[in-house]
Amino acid sequence: MNFGIIGSGSWGTALAKILTDNNHPVNWWIRNEKDIIYFKNRHHNPQYLSSAYFDTDLINFNNDVAAVIESSDCIIMVVPSAYATQTLSELPRSIFQNKKIVSAIKGILPEQNLLLNEYLKSEFGVALSDYFTILGPCHAEEVGAEKLSYLTFSGIDVDTTKLIASHFKNDYINTIENSDVYGVQYAAVLKNIYALGAGIAHGLEYGDNFLSVLIANSADEMAGFLRKVGIKNVEVGGIEHNLTITNTRNEKHTTNYAASVYLGDLLVTCYSLYSRNRTFGNMIGKGYSVKAAQLEMNMVAEGYNASKCIYNINKKILAEMPIAETIYKILWENMPAIKGFENIEKSLV
Amino acid sequence: MNFGIIGSGSWGTALAKILTDNNHPVNWWIRNEKDIIYFKNRHHNPQYLSSAYFDTDLINFNNDVAAVIESSDCIIMVVPSAYATQTLSELPRSIFQNKKIVSAIKGILPEQNLLLNEYLKSEFGVALSDYFTILGPCHAEEVGAEKLSYLTFSGIDVDTTKLIASHFKNDYINTIENSDVYGVQYAAVLKNIYALGAGIAHGLEYGDNFLSVLIANSADEMAGFLRKVGIKNVEVGGIEHNLTITNTRNEKHTTNYAASVYLGDLLVTCYSLYSRNRTFGNMIGKGYSVKAAQLEMNMVAEGYNASKCIYNINKKILAEMPIAETIYKILWENMPAIKGFENIEKSLV
Repeated sequence: MNFGIIGSGSWGTALAKILTDNNHPVNWWIRNEKDIIYFKNRHHNPQYLSSAYFDTDLINFNNDVAAVIESSDCIIMVVPSAYATQTLSELPRSIFQNKKIVSAIKGILPEQNLLLNEYLKSEFGVALSDYFTILGPCHAEEVGAEKLSYLTFSGIDVDTTKLIASHFKNDYINTIENSDVYGVQYAAVLKNIYALGAGIAHGLEYGDNFLSVLIANSADEMAGFLRKVGIKNVEVGGIEHNLTITNTRNEKHTTNYAASVYLGDLLVTCYSLYSRNRTFGNMIGKGYSVKAAQLEMNMVAEGYNASKCIYNINKKILAEMPIAETIYKILWENMPAIKGFENIEKSLV
Repeated sequence: MNFGIIGSGSWGTALAKILTDNNHPVNWWIRNEKDIIYFKNRHHNPQYLSSAYFDTDLINFNNDVAAVIESSDCIIMVVPSAYATQTLSELPRSIFQNKKIVSAIKGILPEQNLLLNEYLKSEFGVALSDYFTILGPCHAEEVGAEKLSYLTFSGIDVDTTKLIASHFKNDYINTIENSDVYGVQYAAVLKNIYALGAGIAHGLEYGDNFLSVLIANSADEMAGFLRKVGIKNVEVGGIEHNLTITNTRNEKHTTNYAASVYLGDLLVTCYSLYSRNRTFGNMIGKGYSVKAAQLEMNMVAEGYNASKCIYNINKKILAEMPIAETIYKILWENMPAIKGFENIEKSLV
């Protein structure tokens, strides 16, 4: 398998590290020619995970997206969700023919309100059976430091999912597989909303007792949404609502959304003190306006757009989401955080 | 309802604070006469939660357990699980006749390997319908500081459960009710084992990525055990396997063990840096023997006994518990922690 990596942020760099540590050559799109030159000279990414050393003989750098895609069988998409369409929009419709696409994008495309596979299908005719995801609770920094981490590979083509996963497994990466390619992507979006909520709660000076109740109920709310999304996808003939998951030892489990790619990712995001969502939420809880918090942080927390996307999607799914809905209203409809949380408080079990 | 409180540790003190803050008089057993005198003079417990002020006019202190039980309709048991039988063993068999008993004990009686209700039934003929629990994710210190916290009241007598809960509800306590009186008690035991496991992982220098995977899988393993215990109790005619839970606003939910009394309590315990289980586990992970860790800490972490109790109980339940079983083997059968965790690693999803 000939891998192409589109994106060179910290997570893209971590994925490139895993593949090259496993001695796989990669084609890697890095937009900036100067960064490529630096990378070749110094054997590390100038911008991200700079302590990770790379054998650059294994890397075929290129600042032309089309060239990287054309020379690869398996394209790993790892740009921020907000830039995905911009990166791909000029490419010819046929460019992904006979390619496998693996998304490591944790988010919905905000303008289109689509998952990447939905966008790729409409713009490039990519079939769901050629689409896969790499997700799971993974701070890139810990992958950089070779701390044992778990990646979940999802796809409806079970054999190819397994094949792709096999290239990533090594002494610091354990791989897990399932076929819930819609559910895992929605879980990755939802967790950012709930982490932002945990941040708001912290800013409002709730304690650890409350936080644990909020996060447990967030997990339950997420599971309720995923169950309904799964059923929706069965109805539209998309994918099977299958919660079987295969561990690194090839044993099958059925979990109720308590596996690492669902609950684990929610936990690592909600409990991380360094998450942008948590920091942003904290400022909202302290009384900053959305605009002031964004100016102060000089970046957008993923949960901000995600709350709107999910709010709109849920108009069709109709899952019970008192927590996510309230966070949406606080962020987008000027509901005072303190009032929003009074509503949330009463709904928790 | 006339409450008697048996126990005056930090959690007993927190429960007494809630009731007296709600203007309920209480009968309170405190073993040490000197502590009672101090308490009356200074309006706070000399040993625990000493910053919580009490209106002592509402408290009828007594250092005689039998007298406290006899003068109360509803007895709250809140001694450490290891001392419960010692506290009760000299009492006449009929003493609990026509009484309601509410357990706030987070543990199995270690010598008997019984839940408190099982012990009370065999020794005092207490019916399950007269037995209730107060559990949930609650650091006593946060109740002391009046930070909003959630208590879950469980019992098969739904109306009395609701009545008991109503006496605890106030502006810093939200109450939740369900009938899964076995499940909530086992969850309170299991969470200590998993928190100890999180401590071992930390001691072995796994990172946050791994920790989130471990805790998510612990939640899943706990749910698997509780589901089987529930079914067992249906089979023996005990209780219905009912996961309906009622929030503070009296709305009913069905959750899959992701409510606060299950998952929330697991999270607050696993992520608390101050938990004894976590500290003890950390020492084991760093290579201390069980004996050395106990000497160093000068106390026993609840998860230590709990791991043995659950290991033995699971010989009948036969739930899949690779995490809890490995922790048992590390603590009780000299399995090296590093080897145990190599086994756990491969089972995670």
